[in-house]
Amino acid sequence: MKSEHTETPVTVLGLGRMGSALAGALLAAGHPTTVWNRTPGKADALVARGALRADTVADAVTASDLLVVCVLDHAAVTALLQPVAGQLAGRTLVNLTSGSPEQARETAAWAAGHGIAYLDGGIMTTPEGVGLPTSMILYSGSPEALAAHRGTLAVLGDPIDLGADAGLASLYDAGLLGLMWSVFGGWLHATALVGADGVAAGTFTPVALRWLTTVGGFLDRYAGQIDAGHYPGDDATIDVQLAAVEHLLHAGRERGVDGRLPEFHRELMAKAVAEGNGGDSYARLVDAFRRP
Amino acid sequence: MKSEHTETPVTVLGLGRMGSALAGALLAAGHPTTVWNRTPGKADALVARGALRADTVADAVTASDLLVVCVLDHAAVTALLQPVAGQLAGRTLVNLTSGSPEQARETAAWAAGHGIAYLDGGIMTTPEGVGLPTSMILYSGSPEALAAHRGTLAVLGDPIDLGADAGLASLYDAGLLGLMWSVFGGWLHATALVGADGVAAGTFTPVALRWLTTVGGFLDRYAGQIDAGHYPGDDATIDVQLAAVEHLLHAGRERGVDGRLPEFHRELMAKAVAEGNGGDSYARLVDAFRRP
Repeated sequence: MKSEHTETPVTVLGLGRMGSALAGALLAAGHPTTVWNRTPGKADALVARGALRADTVADAVTASDLLVVCVLDHAAVTALLQPVAGQLAGRTLVNLTSGSPEQARETAAWAAGHGIAYLDGGIMTTPEGVGLPTSMILYSGSPEALAAHRGTLAVLGDPIDLGADAGLASLYDAGLLGLMWSVFGGWLHATALVGADGVAAGTFTPVALRWLTTVGGFLDRYAGQIDAGHYPGDDATIDVQLAAVEHLLHAGRERGVDGRLPEFHRELMAKAVAEGNGGDSYARLVDAFRRP
Repeated sequence: MKSEHTETPVTVLGLGRMGSALAGALLAAGHPTTVWNRTPGKADALVARGALRADTVADAVTASDLLVVCVLDHAAVTALLQPVAGQLAGRTLVNLTSGSPEQARETAAWAAGHGIAYLDGGIMTTPEGVGLPTSMILYSGSPEALAAHRGTLAVLGDPIDLGADAGLASLYDAGLLGLMWSVFGGWLHATALVGADGVAAGTFTPVALRWLTTVGGFLDRYAGQIDAGHYPGDDATIDVQLAAVEHLLHAGRERGVDGRLPEFHRELMAKAVAEGNGGDSYARLVDAFRRP
């Protein structure tokens, strides 16, 4: 079968919802795809679509020079791969399992010690979003491995190169999820607020989405301020925003909306004002998050 | 002078940074613009650019059928306009002063009682952003007044029509600022997190901005879920996200980054899971913000 293909063969280890989505995207793009899962039944649907079933991890590893692993956690990665380190030597291992930056660096060091090219990754989408060119997949680790396999990895989503420190994909992943929960929280709070006066979420949200674009423009400017360590308040000062947050808190109280989120923001602003930084831009508040 | 113009004459009351930006945008677009400020000197720069100075509020009001007021607060609006209610009758008053929805509704009722067409507004940009077509200016109140003056108001920024309830511009304004502070907070937290491992804000932020677009796609879907009161967790459940937030908290602790923001989000998720809603989408958490 393989001889009919010109696409790079790939092995996917781990066929949970995400692993199955990864294997499915590779199959759809014509890659000879070998699959393995601890519970073999999970491979059935993929095999029906043309995937090759590996009965053992060793068979799965030796089937392809490019391996993608997506299992429950770091411990599962270690348990799975340490016994086959010898067979992995000389191949490229792409670890898309969720974990910490420290775990990624540990696996990268282990891989380097066994002559395995290593990429750690963060999938910034749901299983349904795998394979879409708008979906970001973050990679850090071996720059040579990413350069060699970028075309194949692009089948899974747009590859974003974060450089040689294998821990950065996990670190970005965590930070971006935190940003997402903050966006969700702010939007849910606002939706509850306008909803109390009869505005549907579907009416409010298009305005909120357009507003996110405006807010994104501020982030772009503030990023430069943070890197320069200089926070000119020439667009909107913390002083002005501290006054505005009172309107939000008041409107929320009148409507019985939970105020913990805006109260947290007010606390950060008030502290900066008390420290004499009220004339600075909001970017100054990065200090509130950094190690003291 | 006025006879040379075909554009609608406009009066701007209040020439702080924002009021001056509004008057400047009108002047730039060729509108005969009458200006008044409690401290007359603030009008000088605008007069030098062609604005007409009104010496009294009554002169300012009678100079134009369309009036824009942008002063410190609701009390200032009331003190300014109540004495000239008679002269305002039959004209259109656009109040761009920051205030609460309740204050906007009160002013709208007062205006209606005096035969004044009333629009309340929220300027969703900084003074520098006034006049840009990408800037949103929210309006609520008289639909007829907005229809009649949309072309003139578009000179200040893109007019967004929120309907006849005069309180909604202020309510949206407050909710959108809350969303902005949440975005800022999540981004600052993430910037501090990746910054601890040597990543510049300017390196991280383009990835964060692209991620905001992905997150926006979730908001679009979740808005429909909130309006339907049905939260299928078919993309990503609260259970899954509660597991992921632990990675973020752990990475933050390792780096000495302030964890109050992700801890708040974890608390919301954990409560939903404890209530048996862990299989739902994140949109279910709107309940955490609503009046119990």
